[in-house]
Amino acid sequence: MESNDYNDPAMIGGCSVPIRVNRKSKPEPTIVKVNEIPIGSSEVVIIAGPCSVENHEQLMETAKAVKSAGGVILRGGAFKPRSSPYNFQGLGEEGLVLLKEARKVTGLPIVTEVMDTRLVELVAGYADILQIGSRNMQNYPLLKEVGMLRKPVLLKRGMMATIEEFLLAAEYILNQGNDQVILCERGIRTFETSTRNTLDLGAVPMLKHLTHLPVIVDPSHGTGHRWMVPSMAKAAVAAGADGLIIEVHYKPEEALCDGQQSLSPAEFAKLMADLKKIAQAVGREIY
Amino acid sequence: MESNDYNDPAMIGGCSVPIRVNRKSKPEPTIVKVNEIPIGSSEVVIIAGPCSVENHEQLMETAKAVKSAGGVILRGGAFKPRSSPYNFQGLGEEGLVLLKEARKVTGLPIVTEVMDTRLVELVAGYADILQIGSRNMQNYPLLKEVGMLRKPVLLKRGMMATIEEFLLAAEYILNQGNDQVILCERGIRTFETSTRNTLDLGAVPMLKHLTHLPVIVDPSHGTGHRWMVPSMAKAAVAAGADGLIIEVHYKPEEALCDGQQSLSPAEFAKLMADLKKIAQAVGREIY
Amino acid sequence: MESNDYNDPAMIGGCSVPIRVNRKSKPEPTIVKVNEIPIGSSEVVIIAGPCSVENHEQLMETAKAVKSAGGVILRGGAFKPRSSPYNFQGLGEEGLVLLKEARKVTGLPIVTEVMDTRLVELVAGYADILQIGSRNMQNYPLLKEVGMLRKPVLLKRGMMATIEEFLLAAEYILNQGNDQVILCERGIRTFETSTRNTLDLGAVPMLKHLTHLPVIVDPSHGTGHRWMVPSMAKAAVAAGADGLIIEVHYKPEEALCDGQQSLSPAEFAKLMADLKKIAQAVGREIY
Amino acid sequence: MESNDYNDPAMIGGCSVPIRVNRKSKPEPTIVKVNEIPIGSSEVVIIAGPCSVENHEQLMETAKAVKSAGGVILRGGAFKPRSSPYNFQGLGEEGLVLLKEARKVTGLPIVTEVMDTRLVELVAGYADILQIGSRNMQNYPLLKEVGMLRKPVLLKRGMMATIEEFLLAAEYILNQGNDQVILCERGIRTFETSTRNTLDLGAVPMLKHLTHLPVIVDPSHGTGHRWMVPSMAKAAVAAGADGLIIEVHYKPEEALCDGQQSLSPAEFAKLMADLKKIAQAVGREIY
Repeated sequence: MESNDYNDPAMIGGCSVPIRVNRKSKPEPTIVKVNEIPIGSSEVVIIAGPCSVENHEQLMETAKAVKSAGGVILRGGAFKPRSSPYNFQGLGEEGLVLLKEARKVTGLPIVTEVMDTRLVELVAGYADILQIGSRNMQNYPLLKEVGMLRKPVLLKRGMMATIEEFLLAAEYILNQGNDQVILCERGIRTFETSTRNTLDLGAVPMLKHLTHLPVIVDPSHGTGHRWMVPSMAKAAVAAGADGLIIEVHYKPEEALCDGQQSLSPAEFAKLMADLKKIAQAVGREIY
Repeated sequence: MESNDYNDPAMIGGCSVPIRVNRKSKPEPTIVKVNEIPIGSSEVVIIAGPCSVENHEQLMETAKAVKSAGGVILRGGAFKPRSSPYNFQGLGEEGLVLLKEARKVTGLPIVTEVMDTRLVELVAGYADILQIGSRNMQNYPLLKEVGMLRKPVLLKRGMMATIEEFLLAAEYILNQGNDQVILCERGIRTFETSTRNTLDLGAVPMLKHLTHLPVIVDPSHGTGHRWMVPSMAKAAVAAGADGLIIEVHYKPEEALCDGQQSLSPAEFAKLMADLKKIAQAVGREIY
Repeated sequence: MESNDYNDPAMIGGCSVPIRVNRKSKPEPTIVKVNEIPIGSSEVVIIAGPCSVENHEQLMETAKAVKSAGGVILRGGAFKPRSSPYNFQGLGEEGLVLLKEARKVTGLPIVTEVMDTRLVELVAGYADILQIGSRNMQNYPLLKEVGMLRKPVLLKRGMMATIEEFLLAAEYILNQGNDQVILCERGIRTFETSTRNTLDLGAVPMLKHLTHLPVIVDPSHGTGHRWMVPSMAKAAVAAGADGLIIEVHYKPEEALCDGQQSLSPAEFAKLMADLKKIAQAVGREIY
Repeated sequence: MESNDYNDPAMIGGCSVPIRVNRKSKPEPTIVKVNEIPIGSSEVVIIAGPCSVENHEQLMETAKAVKSAGGVILRGGAFKPRSSPYNFQGLGEEGLVLLKEARKVTGLPIVTEVMDTRLVELVAGYADILQIGSRNMQNYPLLKEVGMLRKPVLLKRGMMATIEEFLLAAEYILNQGNDQVILCERGIRTFETSTRNTLDLGAVPMLKHLTHLPVIVDPSHGTGHRWMVPSMAKAAVAAGADGLIIEVHYKPEEALCDGQQSLSPAEFAKLMADLKKIAQAVGREIY
């Protein structure tokens, strides 16, 4: 009794792709513009910043380091989804105010997460890109709410979402009229425990094949280990990613969350230099 | 830098159990009372009803069949989380009104899902138990919101959630002051594809060991096949479940969702008789 | 280019069932007879014994305890597949000799594992049932070799094998002319870490539906925790299992392997009593 | 009671690394020499060839194409592990004879799989590298047998094996005195179904961190789709792989197995050119 009339017939491994995200219905790639930065073009876009906004000094110092090394968008969490209610939950609106100031200081546009339908308007008032986190990939009221905005959305793959479910989640946003969606592979949950998640880089060519939307990769959550981030960042660009989102902290050892997977400014600067070579080797450039 | 001061040291397989849900901090079982029905006692509670509320006839006929066979709580979805935006999304508030009428007609208390923080008050005005679905198990604003109610919450395990994460999600609710939480194992996602999910019945003794909260099982989503539901319902009671939540539809072949996993009234009545024997075999009774 | 001519069209969830194990090609259940013990009949058969044969006293004391509590087949490993080369690898042929003696003393038939094609003849000279372990479920030369015997084979599901692959592995044995195959669900590997494996009890009704072969369950490896074994053993029988294989050790705390999941003789005796009630509740008896 | 005396204490995510494969016990990388080809050096080694040896023309034409494009080792299966007994099982020794002829014609050394302890001597008489396939990664008698050779072994990660189990399997070989082991990541089994397996490229930096053994990647089995192979091959080299093993067939559409994931000669030649650029971008060269 379920209608799949709007869906394309199965294409890959039984994966059906809904109409609006489907590359067949729109062969040319969607380029999401954030200020002048084109995500989904031949240029690879590097987003970086701390897991969470902690205080003025931490954010400003990290933001400057990101900019100085060549990052072009600043990430930072103000509302944090944490497995335990006893972990740091983020600064809330105070964090948004600090992000706004960091944008003013550095000129970098801001991406930050929204978790609650009631806060979409508030967060949208500060952010240049709204992030939907992994745990909320199938929070349909939230997807519909950001779908009603006319602002870019960075949609992270759920840690146990199939490619098909990921595309269906994006369809919820496009179906409300907002086609400025950036897909982000950030690692899936498997039986392997030596890494925090298993980064599914195969998702990059698969998604690029099935949809016109840009695809970026988060090698920080995808590995959970700082020393693995450069290898996987390079691999992601070699696999065809349109961008990366990387955790950087001016003092990783003091971070309130995800310190063990955050790069220091020096490590990030070194990585940026290496990424340029990889981008060229696949016929692209770092924006 | 993350504080685990409130958590118990690792107990089982590295699984740490937070303080409020922890059986060590409250050895006696929590009994959630829904009207006079005690969930978590020696009596096994059977919840049944359709996947979604479709119309007046469907709900009333199904509700009467549930009651007549011995089910004591009615389930039914008004707001439905669907993977595709093109699938039936539920009747919304109209569905809640029908559920209220079904309660009036049959006397059965109602459990129904809430997905949006903005609708918690509305749904709580109709429901006797609020359900948090699998996709929202880590929707922390929603968990906090239902934590502020003084009403039972049925929390379904995320299809990707470890036992530890499941308990931490429950802790979010208890931490807001609401300890009327029923945990529900409903199948996890694995590599196996012949069943819709893999019903993890080991979660029943594991959860009963770690927490004082009642634990029920959903054999309908846990299998996805109508003909498997009776076997797994019996197995769940044998494993020690405090209750079951089963999809029943007066005409499964016409259901707008989950018809293939819904029991007919006759199948449900047959199962109720069988469950009585299993309950007795483990020293319990069906409420 | 791959031929599936011998396979039945997809039946359940895309799972295709090959011809010889398929219930459609042989509707009546296969009953594997071990001496007079019928596995796959209305009677539930309990197999028990230590993980590995360690020495004379350990095996004889455990075997007597198994027999005394009502177990009817003795398990015990002589050749042990161990993840690490530095763990105890079993006594080898010396273990087989001890098993033979235990059979003489107690009258219990013996099931023991064979891992190497070169040792099939040797092990078959001692064992009443040859076990193919999880790690060897897709060791096709070994499957073919035991397929050429006319002796019962207990085939354990691989820890990451689909139902379809499990049935195809059994088909390798039947295809060589040996239809005395007992399937054993022993837990699959998932993301959950609080249990050793995730016992997939849904495999019981699924396999009973698809094949005529008997299906038993190993609640010891399926959980990894002694205190969970009784719950899951009862659940397995309630789900329709034709038998159980349970680790019992006369002194679990001194076991050379799997001590934490082995029942003591007293625990096993208590469980046997409980299993009788469950078997009756589903219209069966313990053999 | 299990001894881990020989194991290093937990290093990464609770993963313990046994002594002989451990990089701490041998900081310099092991370079496996196949004729003059150094696997594990700064040069990236490309292995290619058909899934299975089918006939004279197929093997010779494919081998020449591999050589002409710059592949330096020829792969080809004579004994094939197939999920179904009704699929093509390989040519057996006749396939080995053809491989030997292909080596004579092209000069390319040969890697081919051995599945049965009884055939190790036979296969070793033909092959330059013996392959242990995924399904046999924990076939300990087989590991011990190839451990007694003094010939390179290509050990493929089991589709269900953790990094720790993979290293323990390699330890079985080294423990017998053969340290010429090449590890191969070939995709793990997860819930995702759009790809044949999930290629875990994070395993490359993880393994390089934990062990001195060379690590190569199989992008063909890791994806299951021909059109994904180039992206993932490039990503593997960018991630730090010491080599690749790629399925190539002179007429993929006629292949008896794995045709859908085999590159044509032209596709392979194109990929080789692209890989040179990636290798240079990470400071290496293609051998």
